[in-house]
Amino acid sequence: MVQKMDSIVLANRPLGDAELGNFRLETAELPQPGPNEFLARTIWLSLDPYMRGRMNDTKSYSPPVGIDETMEGGCVAEVMESNNPDYSVGDIILDRLGWTSHGISKGIGVRKIDPIIAPISSNLGVLGMPGLTAWVGLNDILEAQPGETIVISAATGAVGSLAGQLAKLKGMRVIGIAGGYDKTQYAINELGYDVCIDHKSASLHELRKQISVAAPNGVDCYFENVGGKTLEAILPLLNTFARIALCGMIAWYSPEATKTAGPIPTVWGAILRQRLRVRGFIIFDHYDRLDAFLEEVAPMVSNGTIKYKETISLGLSSAPQSFLDLLEGKNFGKQLVRVGNDPK
Amino acid sequence: MVQKMDSIVLANRPLGDAELGNFRLETAELPQPGPNEFLARTIWLSLDPYMRGRMNDTKSYSPPVGIDETMEGGCVAEVMESNNPDYSVGDIILDRLGWTSHGISKGIGVRKIDPIIAPISSNLGVLGMPGLTAWVGLNDILEAQPGETIVISAATGAVGSLAGQLAKLKGMRVIGIAGGYDKTQYAINELGYDVCIDHKSASLHELRKQISVAAPNGVDCYFENVGGKTLEAILPLLNTFARIALCGMIAWYSPEATKTAGPIPTVWGAILRQRLRVRGFIIFDHYDRLDAFLEEVAPMVSNGTIKYKETISLGLSSAPQSFLDLLEGKNFGKQLVRVGNDPK
Repeated sequence: MVQKMDSIVLANRPLGDAELGNFRLETAELPQPGPNEFLARTIWLSLDPYMRGRMNDTKSYSPPVGIDETMEGGCVAEVMESNNPDYSVGDIILDRLGWTSHGISKGIGVRKIDPIIAPISSNLGVLGMPGLTAWVGLNDILEAQPGETIVISAATGAVGSLAGQLAKLKGMRVIGIAGGYDKTQYAINELGYDVCIDHKSASLHELRKQISVAAPNGVDCYFENVGGKTLEAILPLLNTFARIALCGMIAWYSPEATKTAGPIPTVWGAILRQRLRVRGFIIFDHYDRLDAFLEEVAPMVSNGTIKYKETISLGLSSAPQSFLDLLEGKNFGKQLVRVGNDPK
Repeated sequence: MVQKMDSIVLANRPLGDAELGNFRLETAELPQPGPNEFLARTIWLSLDPYMRGRMNDTKSYSPPVGIDETMEGGCVAEVMESNNPDYSVGDIILDRLGWTSHGISKGIGVRKIDPIIAPISSNLGVLGMPGLTAWVGLNDILEAQPGETIVISAATGAVGSLAGQLAKLKGMRVIGIAGGYDKTQYAINELGYDVCIDHKSASLHELRKQISVAAPNGVDCYFENVGGKTLEAILPLLNTFARIALCGMIAWYSPEATKTAGPIPTVWGAILRQRLRVRGFIIFDHYDRLDAFLEEVAPMVSNGTIKYKETISLGLSSAPQSFLDLLEGKNFGKQLVRVGNDPK
């Protein structure tokens, strides 16, 4: 049997909300590695909100995915054939092959994974890019301190769930915001949040009231993943000199949703009056912190101190729908696609 | 002749734009200083944009002025009678008597002025709160560096005109934004701006284009005094890791004006994508920097290295109209009211 390669490409750009018709599955001959290259097969594909931005043809921190190009994304993969002396058949690696069953790589930016430390999929979540985002956001961007009150939006997401647990270990009062009863209960009972509030069942006004009750001393740090109603609710509750780490705004990734957004002076006035520090960050700028992050967090994942949850969809062809579900918050924890079997 | 005291009080709160009817002139007997107090007469009253915020009954960094209370404000005044051993008749002081011809003070927060260093009015402008705002904003908040490009809004205002001159002395490329031909020419020819752009004669799109031409290497620092069209124009031009010092948003002090403001995601998206650092600051938090500021800047004002301009209106009763003019940008440089004569 001749083996084929499946890939999901960007068929066209979304006009409003992203939809299934924006993607197309393509099948091709399995490619052969050239000099110094290796061929790898994807085992796990990571789905992340930032990918929505790559579907637009607008200036961002990375160029957009081109039409008919494979959607980009991080993967855990196994080396199948290698002409590169640094990589051997059977190596398990973290690579950016994209939404594809197989890929060719020169090994640049690739990291080998030790499958002994933790399940290999965790390198896309709690020990991967989202985990590093949580750790850098909390320590380097917010400079969060024991005794302070922090609010974390998308509290049970891949970033938020680790940020919340690390904040609790640091001795902070930790308030989560999540969508739906199950997520809020998980945040409190499993992740150790002091309070977790359901934004779906509350108006902006009610959400603000619930946060203010949960934060009797006001809010010192806001880990911002969502924008939208949650941001607008929290602004007046931020203490003087409070800090905001802005690493995502999923509520506003759809052009449609921005039509209901409040006006700039709402947020600009809060920054001025409350003397806030707001800092945007993208984890690609902070990979120099990876070793320090893994040194601290990997042992806690291994010994079960840190918990994490994954939503797994099966087969590469399930990626588009799973991605749309992720944008609507239907996932619970890190969203993964199982593209291939675990190594034997 | 019995001497009277004139004061301008807040008669009622503005519903939209501030107007003359929000103020009322009141006359009373001249008060007598009690134990440890002194009586002072106002020579110069400072008018500043932040006062607009004090007219609203909303939470801010300071409580609002009460209805029928004297409008607050900084003054240069002369001590007339004193029961306080630290202050003698004839002392020239910087105080916060408000919009009034006379006031009683215990001397708390008062600073004596040496009339030899510079004209006493300069202690309300280039050597006062606006000057300190410019210096702290540039050095402590923006951490501006030689070789960088800075944009300064309200470029010929009391804050902007010093910020621009200090930035130029630091070796930066300095781009001003001001309202009208006369101000832009003054900024370039007298203050030494590399470029100054007239926001009044340009649409948002044209303003953006002019700034982008003036900043071929992008913008590293934005000294934000205005909000509105200028902010929206500059957002896409800010470099990765650029900084914004937010110390005013005069374009949005009127509730009416906020109706034409853009949506929050515009600014939130720029902060995220361009990894900006935005910091709001209020000069009252930074008075510990006053001595360092005066040590550096006062000699440069004395010897003429630093230039400054004042718009002077005559008589306390002119204060309300002059304040409304200030909010519309009709002043040129620091807006003062001459309330009393210079000391003999």
